[in-house]
Amino acid sequence: MTGRIVVLTGGVGGAKLALGMCAAAPAGSVTAIVNTGDDFSHFGLFVSPDIDTLLYTLSGQANAEQGWGRENETASFMTALRSLGAEDWFNLGDGDLALHVLRTHLRGLGVSLSEITKRFARAWRLEAEILPMTDDPVSTQLQTDDGVLAFQHYFVKRRCAPRVRDVRYCGSGEARPAPGLLEALRDADAIIIAPSNPYLSIGPILAIPEIREALLTASAPRVAVSPIIGGESVKGPTSKLMRELGVAVDNQSIADFYGGLIDGLVIDERDAAPAGDVSVRKTNILMWTTDDKRRVAEAALAFADELRAP
Amino acid sequence: MTGRIVVLTGGVGGAKLALGMCAAAPAGSVTAIVNTGDDFSHFGLFVSPDIDTLLYTLSGQANAEQGWGRENETASFMTALRSLGAEDWFNLGDGDLALHVLRTHLRGLGVSLSEITKRFARAWRLEAEILPMTDDPVSTQLQTDDGVLAFQHYFVKRRCAPRVRDVRYCGSGEARPAPGLLEALRDADAIIIAPSNPYLSIGPILAIPEIREALLTASAPRVAVSPIIGGESVKGPTSKLMRELGVAVDNQSIADFYGGLIDGLVIDERDAAPAGDVSVRKTNILMWTTDDKRRVAEAALAFADELRAP
Repeated sequence: MTGRIVVLTGGVGGAKLALGMCAAAPAGSVTAIVNTGDDFSHFGLFVSPDIDTLLYTLSGQANAEQGWGRENETASFMTALRSLGAEDWFNLGDGDLALHVLRTHLRGLGVSLSEITKRFARAWRLEAEILPMTDDPVSTQLQTDDGVLAFQHYFVKRRCAPRVRDVRYCGSGEARPAPGLLEALRDADAIIIAPSNPYLSIGPILAIPEIREALLTASAPRVAVSPIIGGESVKGPTSKLMRELGVAVDNQSIADFYGGLIDGLVIDERDAAPAGDVSVRKTNILMWTTDDKRRVAEAALAFADELRAP
Repeated sequence: MTGRIVVLTGGVGGAKLALGMCAAAPAGSVTAIVNTGDDFSHFGLFVSPDIDTLLYTLSGQANAEQGWGRENETASFMTALRSLGAEDWFNLGDGDLALHVLRTHLRGLGVSLSEITKRFARAWRLEAEILPMTDDPVSTQLQTDDGVLAFQHYFVKRRCAPRVRDVRYCGSGEARPAPGLLEALRDADAIIIAPSNPYLSIGPILAIPEIREALLTASAPRVAVSPIIGGESVKGPTSKLMRELGVAVDNQSIADFYGGLIDGLVIDERDAAPAGDVSVRKTNILMWTTDDKRRVAEAALAFADELRAP
């Protein structure tokens, strides 16, 4: 369970596993490759929700109850914004604004998202490396019965209510991986796909051609942790989305989605294994406590070790 | 004491008199023309301190103790910003940020400062009109022994410590008055210059050629309220600045500064009247309580009434 670990992740659920990885592995051995398809501009501020969730979670500042945002957050900004009659569907916490304002400012000065993320991580003394999947614009867009919706409009403003027909990762075809990302995948001893929403959080990462290619040719074992527990997604919207996309809410769908990109799939002990080539490990994958997160991380890493062995 | 009242004002001290005017005069009769020479961009946010002080003061949301910023303000943003290693010499309150963020966003969409200010005032149901002196960029710059400093760098970052040699209002020569401003001066029944710092807060307004011309030709009586009380400025930095600029800290200097632009000067009862043509009214001009503000406003308006009488 030593070596370099790369975790592909979205926000809340993936951050839990990334935190478990940091607990399970030596300091400095974990690199998180993070979805940026949810990033958007709100009131002119560049908001990068999954990056921030990773920053908060790995620095111990996350709001444990909601899984995103900051602990002990205040809401004076939203109160004042509302009093000015501005739209308030996206919550911007007071402390959270520091990241948005500073990131927007630095980007305006020409500093890349990956460099900004590095600076934030350094300021908070993170031992893990957090890499945005790309410094280029990629936008996850949902084709719904109510028209095309950008991710935050679908997910937050519309609370996932519109029926989804298709998911597109706009810009992904032209996007280049962030600096160091391909090297991290090439040099990894284990590549773990976190139990984030495959279609909304991992899909954007895999849609970047050079990242997909690097995963296909990686020498390290590639293990995904399933987002399905007991025939349902751990978070409600994933199940709803899968049904709307016409796929069964089970591990067969997960295995099919990741196709030749994974060697192993960690599924919950109460679920049926998918048919096909992928190796399967069963364990309790619900991550609630800190111990859970570490335990699931250790299980995924041990599984990767086994898959690596000749 | 009826009719249309125009008040030329900077931030804290001037806002007190503007509030007194609103108490003394019928709803809808007061227009504040506000200094924007202190405006600056901080972390990419467009900050307009005097406009905000007027908005907060006239809507009853000002922090009464410090005279600027919001009541019941929180500081989560600054705490988070500091943790990221960013410079923290300029305080941005959490609720205060709503104005900066929304203003910056709207300006990016091409909305003018005067229109934005109007929207904010409308959202907060202000009865007074708040007009920035101009929608064009004007920057108050101080030539000091430590080089040229923009206003906020001199005033906040350096706490007025550098010795000032000269004050410039960069951009004022090309700046146009905000829409409606010249009409307000033309149609006014009384024009009052608030006891703000003449050199730093009123000077930028007077430096805009069309505003100066409109003041010179206004038919309404023009009355300034002195910022001097008992041979010192009410706020320390004004005295220091006057000495550094080589002028005595007295009402003679104030009368000389406003020259032919005023008909009357309201000074404190304990100070000596200036020599020259300007009419003088003595009263207690210290504004501490709400009653003080109203009383000084009423004195200035009554004096204007007298000056108007044939």
